Amino acid sequence: MTVSGQIEPIARMIAQLARLPGIGSKTAQRLAYFILGQPEDQVRELAAAIWQGRKAIRYCSVCGNYTTQDPCAICADPKRQSGVLCVVRDPRDVASIERMRDYRGGYHVLHGTISPMEGVGPDDIRIRELLARIQQQDVQEIILATNPDIEGEATAAYIARLLKPLGVKVTRIAHGLPIGADLEYTDEVTLAMAIECRREM
Amino acid sequence: MTVSGQIEPIARMIAQLARLPGIGSKTAQRLAYFILGQPEDQVRELAAAIWQGRKAIRYCSVCGNYTTQDPCAICADPKRQSGVLCVVRDPRDVASIERMRDYRGGYHVLHGTISPMEGVGPDDIRIRELLARIQQQDVQEIILATNPDIEGEATAAYIARLLKPLGVKVTRIAHGLPIGADLEYTDEVTLAMAIECRREM
Repeated sequence: MTVSGQIEPIARMIAQLARLPGIGSKTAQRLAYFILGQPEDQVRELAAAIWQGRKAIRYCSVCGNYTTQDPCAICADPKRQSGVLCVVRDPRDVASIERMRDYRGGYHVLHGTISPMEGVGPDDIRIRELLARIQQQDVQEIILATNPDIEGEATAAYIARLLKPLGVKVTRIAHGLPIGADLEYTDEVTLAMAIECRREM
Repeated sequence: MTVSGQIEPIARMIAQLARLPGIGSKTAQRLAYFILGQPEDQVRELAAAIWQGRKAIRYCSVCGNYTTQDPCAICADPKRQSGVLCVVRDPRDVASIERMRDYRGGYHVLHGTISPMEGVGPDDIRIRELLARIQQQDVQEIILATNPDIEGEATAAYIARLLKPLGVKVTRIAHGLPIGADLEYTDEVTLAMAIECRREM
């Protein structure tokens, strides 16, 4: 018996689940008891999906996205425009943009954003690799798609400054009101951006 | 690439995580990307805790609680009073009561409650086994600790009626205001129960 009144294998399962983000000890306990009530086959599938998934995934040596083959399916696709690169912070951002099914260029995953507060400088994220790609490939446009937060903006500004002398077109994703939003509930900074970046109709 | 813009191992991990209760597809995706960003060792531990935990756990043949040995540590403990049995719905309820560190009797896990709506009758839960234990062991008191909801109350009432003729003392856990509650925000049924079950000071 452990402190929490659980026998060891259950306590261990709860402790491991509680390490996941947003999963507190109460939720971890609920999940553990759900798992214990499931047929063995299904639990084996869950554990296998977690472990084998993690083991199968590596980084694409070109764009830095998660992949099972190198280069990844996007970098290896001849139908995608290699002259446009969308720069994002994380692999999950690639998945978000891909879900849109609209973008046909390539990616460059930074694996972080510049954050002096957390001791992350330009050399700690994949900016060097981006410069190397621009020198090797024929890149016409770099779309900076880091998040519109302090770190994301600072990172975008840093990269834009770095690339300008190389003669590459550098763009930033638009800031403004999300579709379905309400002027009344929009914060002032977003509203100011939406007005500043207004376009003619 | 799957519909959600994910490569197969990631899509599979998300699908498996989304099968957990209270985990929607957005949360599953967040968890999957967290897992992919973790060191292999830690992911192996998580998967092992889930799979080995599930594999190690069986039901105690006496009380029906989760255990790794049979009979379970509680049933096998000579220091616990075998004359008092606390009847609960799920193994997780045993853990809740054990956490209190106050109760020194045994348990009987029903693995469900009577629910005509869901087609669960008295024969579908471990009531027969409870009767058998009462006939075999020297049981003085049965504490009915099913939840204070419709099914829990119905199940408690059913068992009480069944045990009365056997001359066993049958008690029900108290209903009333939880500690720290506020009269103003307490529902009428709980309040009525708290007044009805009042005790002299």
